[in-house]
Amino acid sequence: LVKGNLYYYFKNKQDILYHCHVKCIAISLAALDDVSAMGLAPADALRILLIKHIRNITEDPYGGVLLTDLESLTPTQRRRYVAMRDRFEHGVREMISGGIADGVFAPQNIDLAGITILGAINWIPKWYRTDGRMSSAEIANSIADQLIRSLRP
Amino acid sequence: LVKGNLYYYFKNKQDILYHCHVKCIAISLAALDDVSAMGLAPADALRILLIKHIRNITEDPYGGVLLTDLESLTPTQRRRYVAMRDRFEHGVREMISGGIADGVFAPQNIDLAGITILGAINWIPKWYRTDGRMSSAEIANSIADQLIRSLRP
Repeated sequence: LVKGNLYYYFKNKQDILYHCHVKCIAISLAALDDVSAMGLAPADALRILLIKHIRNITEDPYGGVLLTDLESLTPTQRRRYVAMRDRFEHGVREMISGGIADGVFAPQNIDLAGITILGAINWIPKWYRTDGRMSSAEIANSIADQLIRSLRP
Repeated sequence: LVKGNLYYYFKNKQDILYHCHVKCIAISLAALDDVSAMGLAPADALRILLIKHIRNITEDPYGGVLLTDLESLTPTQRRRYVAMRDRFEHGVREMISGGIADGVFAPQNIDLAGITILGAINWIPKWYRTDGRMSSAEIANSIADQLIRSLRP
């Protein structure tokens, strides 16, 4: 793919960035739907969702762009993207809430716990290198386990 | 302070940004030194350090700038800032390591656990609002507790 080809499909750099954002969050939303349909206990569902979300961010070539630079989108693009991201974050909070109801997670401020977990994951593109010592799957499993532990009593 | 005054003290916008970064990480480094001198068990020291670090980021008017936009610094500025940040991160890893040795934290990949904790904290300026429902102290305590739990067996 050369520069000329890319601009045949996209209006400009901003448009490309927007489509990267939407593509990446759409994959994580599909994972949310898949995992929700598995009929697992909420705490188990959340662990699998976090693994899929982390692997999406680390394995998708656009993943690094995902969660920063919202400032460079147009207001309409930002609104559309943020609506998708909100649906994902809502799904995460529902699973935390379900885990608390099950007694697997401690009673806690769900909004704060959710944004802390998602913030840790959002930071991954800042340090993740595809040529690092650990595979994306190893990193995803380890971080998901740590973040699930953070919710426990 | 008006724009004219500011540029009496600083060369340009980049220079201001650099001094904000250095000021903010210097406060967290001072907290690291203070907490290390308290003679606490490593897990307890880490909890207090995380609270101080989060409060620094949320209460300092430059805190929001802290951990993003390294790209806008000159190579020399970035190197100096990153050296300070590395010393802070090293201190966090030492406390995790001490907590593992004490059996309070689970044996785990210290680098990954450390960057997950610091990533969650680095993300705070993206969502924190000074006029939000919770005080900076409440947020700091709650997130520090959650992140300390994430290290436990």
